[in-house]
Amino acid sequence: MAQGRFLSFEGIDGSGKSTQARLLASALRDLGAEVVLTREPGGSPGAEEIRRLVLEGDPDRWSAETELLLFTAARRDHLEKTIRPALARGAVVITDRFADSSRMYQGISRGDLAATVDALHALMIGVEPDLTLLIDIDPETGLSRAVARQGVEQRFEDMGLDLQRKMRGGFLSLAAAHPARFRVIDGARPPEAVAADVLATARAHLGL
Amino acid sequence: MAQGRFLSFEGIDGSGKSTQARLLASALRDLGAEVVLTREPGGSPGAEEIRRLVLEGDPDRWSAETELLLFTAARRDHLEKTIRPALARGAVVITDRFADSSRMYQGISRGDLAATVDALHALMIGVEPDLTLLIDIDPETGLSRAVARQGVEQRFEDMGLDLQRKMRGGFLSLAAAHPARFRVIDGARPPEAVAADVLATARAHLGL
Repeated sequence: MAQGRFLSFEGIDGSGKSTQARLLASALRDLGAEVVLTREPGGSPGAEEIRRLVLEGDPDRWSAETELLLFTAARRDHLEKTIRPALARGAVVITDRFADSSRMYQGISRGDLAATVDALHALMIGVEPDLTLLIDIDPETGLSRAVARQGVEQRFEDMGLDLQRKMRGGFLSLAAAHPARFRVIDGARPPEAVAADVLATARAHLGL
Repeated sequence: MAQGRFLSFEGIDGSGKSTQARLLASALRDLGAEVVLTREPGGSPGAEEIRRLVLEGDPDRWSAETELLLFTAARRDHLEKTIRPALARGAVVITDRFADSSRMYQGISRGDLAATVDALHALMIGVEPDLTLLIDIDPETGLSRAVARQGVEQRFEDMGLDLQRKMRGGFLSLAAAHPARFRVIDGARPPEAVAADVLATARAHLGL
């Protein structure tokens, strides 16, 4: 993508990534940047329709493969309708989750699908963020935060601590495999300390 | 798929393929076979939900790539929930459209997508019918039939005669490229004559 302005936040449930994405958007706006804050699954009207299709009703009615196709359709729409137009006019795009989340959720919950996830991404999406901020937190803390607040997807919560541990390990492995794109941020600190670290990292990347 | 019992009907709008699929299902049942008659897009509860998402509302809200992903998600669900279980218990499965329709509709309306359609099919579906009955009809007749009856998708009708010509040519090319799988049936005859031809072809294939 042009100009290095496509940023994503990733992390396990309860890591605080959504809060940090919002705080970063606000801080960059204060610095005069146009910022589009978005999220997955969803982020465009069509992608939100697909999100509802997957997440409402019985989530077990979709196989991992069908769900992966639906999330990829949503991502394609998000990319076309929200991300690319914003980047084209020079905005900074901050997305709460992108393809790395599919690599973790579909790839780890069904390990045999990892290669398929990558092949489908290469075929139908083909774009990575310029900078991915991985908000890292120990799974016990993340899960208790996620369970405590409203809004956690019940389905992810149900998967429990063992899955959270695998996700954290998966995200850290992904970060290690793509050191130019990833920055791992210690999410165990108070939100304002995390936010300061995130902002400094983003400013250095964006040259702001 | 096991046992050579997976049959598809293909053809341009107004070719009579849906009528022929229904007549064949009925005739094979009269011969004592268990037959599952199904259709695409749709054919399973989840796939029908995806069908509604694509075909209701403004169809132009989806790009060709997003639509292809949604139809592939529907096909995957159809395959898992309807086709494979029926074949596993020894039924004959007759589907009104399958992947060849995507090859035509997405591949011809957006020629640069043809290779993507094939790659996505190989990655996420990977199955072809054992026998594909292509009901061939000249596009003028097909279009006038399709327009005359209720139920034609307005979007396909809008594409008009030029597209129907391309579709017919595309289907015939596909049949020529896969002679072991395809049988081309002359659809210009009265329905009962077409049905007799279809039944003889299917019986020879199934050994019934």
